[in-house]
Amino acid sequence: MKKANKKLNAAIIIIGNEILSGRTQDTNVSTIANWLNTIGVKLEEVRVIPDIEKTIIKTVNEIRKKFRYIFTTGGIGPTHDDITSKSVSKAFNVKYCYHPEAFKLLKNYYEKGKFNTGRRKMAKMPKNSSLIFNPSSAAPGFYIKNVYCLPGVPSILKSMLGGLNNKIIGGSRIVSKTLSLKTVESEISVPLTKVQNKYKKLDIGSYPFFKQGKLGVSLVIRSKNSELIKKCIKDIMKFVKAKKIRVITNN
Amino acid sequence: MKKANKKLNAAIIIIGNEILSGRTQDTNVSTIANWLNTIGVKLEEVRVIPDIEKTIIKTVNEIRKKFRYIFTTGGIGPTHDDITSKSVSKAFNVKYCYHPEAFKLLKNYYEKGKFNTGRRKMAKMPKNSSLIFNPSSAAPGFYIKNVYCLPGVPSILKSMLGGLNNKIIGGSRIVSKTLSLKTVESEISVPLTKVQNKYKKLDIGSYPFFKQGKLGVSLVIRSKNSELIKKCIKDIMKFVKAKKIRVITNN
Repeated sequence: MKKANKKLNAAIIIIGNEILSGRTQDTNVSTIANWLNTIGVKLEEVRVIPDIEKTIIKTVNEIRKKFRYIFTTGGIGPTHDDITSKSVSKAFNVKYCYHPEAFKLLKNYYEKGKFNTGRRKMAKMPKNSSLIFNPSSAAPGFYIKNVYCLPGVPSILKSMLGGLNNKIIGGSRIVSKTLSLKTVESEISVPLTKVQNKYKKLDIGSYPFFKQGKLGVSLVIRSKNSELIKKCIKDIMKFVKAKKIRVITNN
Repeated sequence: MKKANKKLNAAIIIIGNEILSGRTQDTNVSTIANWLNTIGVKLEEVRVIPDIEKTIIKTVNEIRKKFRYIFTTGGIGPTHDDITSKSVSKAFNVKYCYHPEAFKLLKNYYEKGKFNTGRRKMAKMPKNSSLIFNPSSAAPGFYIKNVYCLPGVPSILKSMLGGLNNKIIGGSRIVSKTLSLKTVESEISVPLTKVQNKYKKLDIGSYPFFKQGKLGVSLVIRSKNSELIKKCIKDIMKFVKAKKIRVITNN
């Protein structure tokens, strides 16, 4: 781990033409983000990039210096457009070769005679990578230094995150409280700004919503310090009461 | 428009802590991507960044030189965390001030006495911006040079894209054909690589799926040249037939 960056932060690189083309709706960002909250790591940037080797190399090398943990999704399967493992090898300037344990694992998984070229490709990764085990479909992910490479298929990705818990040094869980109000943003923007200025260490987000014809605003307060969140909500409630705004939910 | 970059490409900057925290599932990327397909502009990168002024400034200035069109989403509302307009002004080194037309438009929209501080803020933007009209809720977006700033609320954003059609120089519609096969990726990876090597100008994507317990692979071929796509699909069908793979859908 780079000592230069002691912050418990992370970035995701989504490698996939299918997201950029609009064909596929990404859901991996929110899956990873919610998991990172539980282990106290803050997601600070996401990039979605195409399946182009030089773009992957450039992005991985730029991002891995900026954040403590990098997660890539997609491009570790058996087809021609799966170029993440090879590109990450090049980014780290290490050999792209069969990982003995991954090779063995995949060979055992498939019936005799079925361990073909495409499947073998899934055992190739940057030399000296560590494996991220896959409880869904055998083909493992891998990590090298602070770059963790995961598959793009959401259900498989999800099943692999649990195995990473003890591989990542996290911090206190990031707590998030949501106060939903029957109002519009412009009615509360002035007193809310005052509250944010008082609690500079808290992230207070304001999100208007229109659900089933109902208008409202959700205030989301996030921090590792739940006592501070409680105090902040008390202050918000002062102007909410003064303005006779109805609280829809507070949780 | 920068003449240096004649490619009809685009990037999106999603400005929003709510996406990075995992609270909100972004859908604006696929909305914008699908709209860009219809006007022949290729989406080549997406970044999701937090509501931090210096990050917004840095990202806008980096990205606007690389791509022909930049779309930002989020952060143009009335609350303290809506800092996109101010940050984009700083990125372009122009004054952040009331846009006379936007001010008038919002003033007329609200009842007398209801055009408060928060609502006035929505009329502030980089000096000399052009407006992007909002058929849903009055508050306009804006563009300055090649940077188009849109709201984060998906329904409002969607309603504003149509108004941009005649403001963007596009190209031929990007066509996408999908061939879904009853197979697994590793069974077709070798012949598919040969087809991709033959049609270097086409993007051929291979995406495994597991739907309602059914396993399959969708091959997605994208290009502005629909004749070339037809030829490519013919070549794919040759190995599909030879391998006796069932075609689930072809559209």
